[in-house]
Amino acid sequence: METRSTHRTVGGTIGFYTHRSEALGGLEARFGVFVPDGVDAAAPGPALYALGGLTSTEETFATKSGALRAAAQHRLVMVFPDTSPRGADIPGEDDDWDFGTGAGFYLDATQPPWSRNYRMGSYVNDELPALVEAEFPVSAGRRGVIGHSMGGHGALTLALRNPANWQSVSALAPICHPADVPWGQKAFPRYLGNDPAAWAAYDATLLLRAGHRHPTTILIDQGSDDQYLEQQLRPDSFEQAAIAGGQPLQLQRHPGYDHSYWFIQSVIDNHVEHHARILHAP
Amino acid sequence: METRSTHRTVGGTIGFYTHRSEALGGLEARFGVFVPDGVDAAAPGPALYALGGLTSTEETFATKSGALRAAAQHRLVMVFPDTSPRGADIPGEDDDWDFGTGAGFYLDATQPPWSRNYRMGSYVNDELPALVEAEFPVSAGRRGVIGHSMGGHGALTLALRNPANWQSVSALAPICHPADVPWGQKAFPRYLGNDPAAWAAYDATLLLRAGHRHPTTILIDQGSDDQYLEQQLRPDSFEQAAIAGGQPLQLQRHPGYDHSYWFIQSVIDNHVEHHARILHAP
Repeated sequence: METRSTHRTVGGTIGFYTHRSEALGGLEARFGVFVPDGVDAAAPGPALYALGGLTSTEETFATKSGALRAAAQHRLVMVFPDTSPRGADIPGEDDDWDFGTGAGFYLDATQPPWSRNYRMGSYVNDELPALVEAEFPVSAGRRGVIGHSMGGHGALTLALRNPANWQSVSALAPICHPADVPWGQKAFPRYLGNDPAAWAAYDATLLLRAGHRHPTTILIDQGSDDQYLEQQLRPDSFEQAAIAGGQPLQLQRHPGYDHSYWFIQSVIDNHVEHHARILHAP
Repeated sequence: METRSTHRTVGGTIGFYTHRSEALGGLEARFGVFVPDGVDAAAPGPALYALGGLTSTEETFATKSGALRAAAQHRLVMVFPDTSPRGADIPGEDDDWDFGTGAGFYLDATQPPWSRNYRMGSYVNDELPALVEAEFPVSAGRRGVIGHSMGGHGALTLALRNPANWQSVSALAPICHPADVPWGQKAFPRYLGNDPAAWAAYDATLLLRAGHRHPTTILIDQGSDDQYLEQQLRPDSFEQAAIAGGQPLQLQRHPGYDHSYWFIQSVIDNHVEHHARILHAP
């Protein structure tokens, strides 16, 4: 692991790092880590992994969400992965803003040529936490996951697929039912092939319908004036599946708010607190 | 004036606007305005103008500074100008990150070909406040100015040149003595010609030495590990001139902090409060 830069900031230090990733087929991967003041090897803290949306990098959520102040107050380390492998050099990788580079969808692609590098699912679920817990003052196995839009899809699916790995989960304007919307219907066939069962393994609503549960309350905030609400996000589908299946869910709708980080900044404190409450519990 | 977008966010609404600017030679200019909830025509608020650094747009300070939460709490409207004219189509305009586009230095260029459009000094001092005070719920003539780096230079020079226009002033890692550092020595000859007197009119340290004063305490925060501190910023020169001239100055140095918005986020609340205290005074 190499350090690219570190910066003192509100209540702690944020650093940006690079390492060679096995999960991503040997490519170099970038991520950020925020460590609050007072969190160190003698007093490690839980870690909240924050997943960005389409086109984001490891800097986007860290820079624009305004999460660090609350993370410092609650003694939460924050980890900011990138949103896809970079530089896989696959033809077509950079043609679209909603597929390929910047759009890894937090899954493990099974279809060539994507299957060698586009494995952000294993990367965020396994490889990155192992690295972070070896290199930073983080309590092993105390992990929360939060995400925005495509990153919200990532947070929900990671936590529902692997609840033992992720003790707390929340999402901001997440893609709740990708198999049924244009963004997912564009990406999933190329990453996962045409078998609907393969898609269902990375669709939060279908995971709930298939019996997956998270033991904690899932917190979701959604702007009611989000330009992607009906066509791409579908929180109603997720909510219905949660009610039908007994999954505790707190879905909060906010009239007037859109899909941007301006919305995230207005609800982020409550999300950080949600994770802190669970992750700091004895 | 045209509205490009508006977004509900923490404690208010931010909008981005465009208008044809006379000061900038008829070019279209962009700016942002944040209006806290509860501030309206019946209950207007003072306005804090926030000036970005080199390469910034009207979105940068708004997005990365984390200022809006405190602005909402203190009922301050915030205004975010761009950092230069755009699209003047002058040869060489886009060749450098520290000159031309994104690097207007908040001055009125006197040298062709820059003198027609590069007049961010008059734009921020006169044209934009007139527009903002006509179109938004802003108390006429209650204005503060804050800026980062080149924007800090802008804030200091605007307030020292026109103290009647700017009732409060603060700066984050400002370029304090541009006539004596590489950034200024690159930009000033092309914008202002080779006459040192012309440069002195846009150099905060030289303005103090020439007898300009601001009636309030100037607040400056500066990271001690700022990579540009010695070569480009020179707060010591400004401080010496302030002490020698009796200009009230609160210059706070922060060990470990660099030049980035990570630093700004950690001190911004105190700056907003500084402006609110002065601008809300009866």
